[in-house]
Amino acid sequence: MDSSQSRSLRWTPVFERIPEDKRRRVLESAKRSFATKGFAGTNVNLVAEAAGISVGSLYQYFRTKDDLFLALIDEFHLLLESTLDEIVSSETGFFGRVEAILRAAIRSSLEDPDLVRLYIACTTDELAPLSGRLSNRIEGISAQLYRDMVRSAQERGEIDAGADPAATAFCLDDIFLLVQFSYGSDYYRGRLKTFVGASALEDPESLVASVMHFLRRALKPD
Amino acid sequence: MDSSQSRSLRWTPVFERIPEDKRRRVLESAKRSFATKGFAGTNVNLVAEAAGISVGSLYQYFRTKDDLFLALIDEFHLLLESTLDEIVSSETGFFGRVEAILRAAIRSSLEDPDLVRLYIACTTDELAPLSGRLSNRIEGISAQLYRDMVRSAQERGEIDAGADPAATAFCLDDIFLLVQFSYGSDYYRGRLKTFVGASALEDPESLVASVMHFLRRALKPD
Repeated sequence: MDSSQSRSLRWTPVFERIPEDKRRRVLESAKRSFATKGFAGTNVNLVAEAAGISVGSLYQYFRTKDDLFLALIDEFHLLLESTLDEIVSSETGFFGRVEAILRAAIRSSLEDPDLVRLYIACTTDELAPLSGRLSNRIEGISAQLYRDMVRSAQERGEIDAGADPAATAFCLDDIFLLVQFSYGSDYYRGRLKTFVGASALEDPESLVASVMHFLRRALKPD
Repeated sequence: MDSSQSRSLRWTPVFERIPEDKRRRVLESAKRSFATKGFAGTNVNLVAEAAGISVGSLYQYFRTKDDLFLALIDEFHLLLESTLDEIVSSETGFFGRVEAILRAAIRSSLEDPDLVRLYIACTTDELAPLSGRLSNRIEGISAQLYRDMVRSAQERGEIDAGADPAATAFCLDDIFLLVQFSYGSDYYRGRLKTFVGASALEDPESLVASVMHFLRRALKPD
């Protein structure tokens, strides 16, 4: 790991120097706990224990429980950024990008459901004291990117010229977000089953197709 | 209050017999705490104290913290049911109903933000042990209603005949839900500001108009 790139403000230089697999173990243990028990419900002693370290070591790596939580949110942030960058550079058409974002949302949830659960935990008002420090940075990336995608597709005549780019980005993200939640969280998995049926969980491509039908119509030019 | 109607499985008969204003005080105090501190972060002693009762009395009214939480979710459920019933009986056209649902989502969040925060708390995996008992009942009502609305509008030729009713109901609810969250929760208020700007918070009608533009195009017949 290139420490000049990975240097996070959330952890201490001590954490930088421990082996990669140990670092991974600490972050995974914390992610698991915040994702399943929430912020207040997370006991740092148990996080340390599950990672096979002492709680004293944990406090040498992260000064506070807040910092431990925020380090994980940074991870979500970096993952989203790199996923979207990759989609934008490999897909050129508007609807191709939208479809790739939907698929990436589903794939990332299936691969790492705890990251989605963590994101959901971070949207609760229980975490309002931290939200000033989060300042919707995750949304900052996607809002900007989706608005730009809408504007440039409008200029090319690929989509409805009358749509408001900001509100369109909001509607797109509403759907991306709840598709993502649906494959990672217990509650939203139940919601998808209630709305669309178990088939959507077993065959995500069928949901992608129906959602694309909806979005293509919403945005196609006159 | 007609006790045959109001009888909840969540509270005890003792709770039924106390004065209405005291009952309200207990429920409001619990709602405030769960909404802002989450389930694990809620201390029933403080809930009792804020309601001006002893914790012994609280346990006479609700056998467990789970029951207290679930009683509030029932309240959300009843409110949603009556709001949707009212809209369906007063609006006949599909898009008129959709617009009325958007407005009701915003109004209910502005009037009672704690209820929205409570709903968000209940979507976290921290509450998975309770979610079996919740079984997405809130979604059950809206999923059924939106699917029926789509099907009957398709039969009347009012909307796209090729749309899948279940997936369309899901996409509509994605937008309704995140519009509702945006006017009640700190995190989602920040998200709306990032996507659309502070104007959407100050002037919800401008958001309703843009969202309706999107939804009308998504669903208009060929």
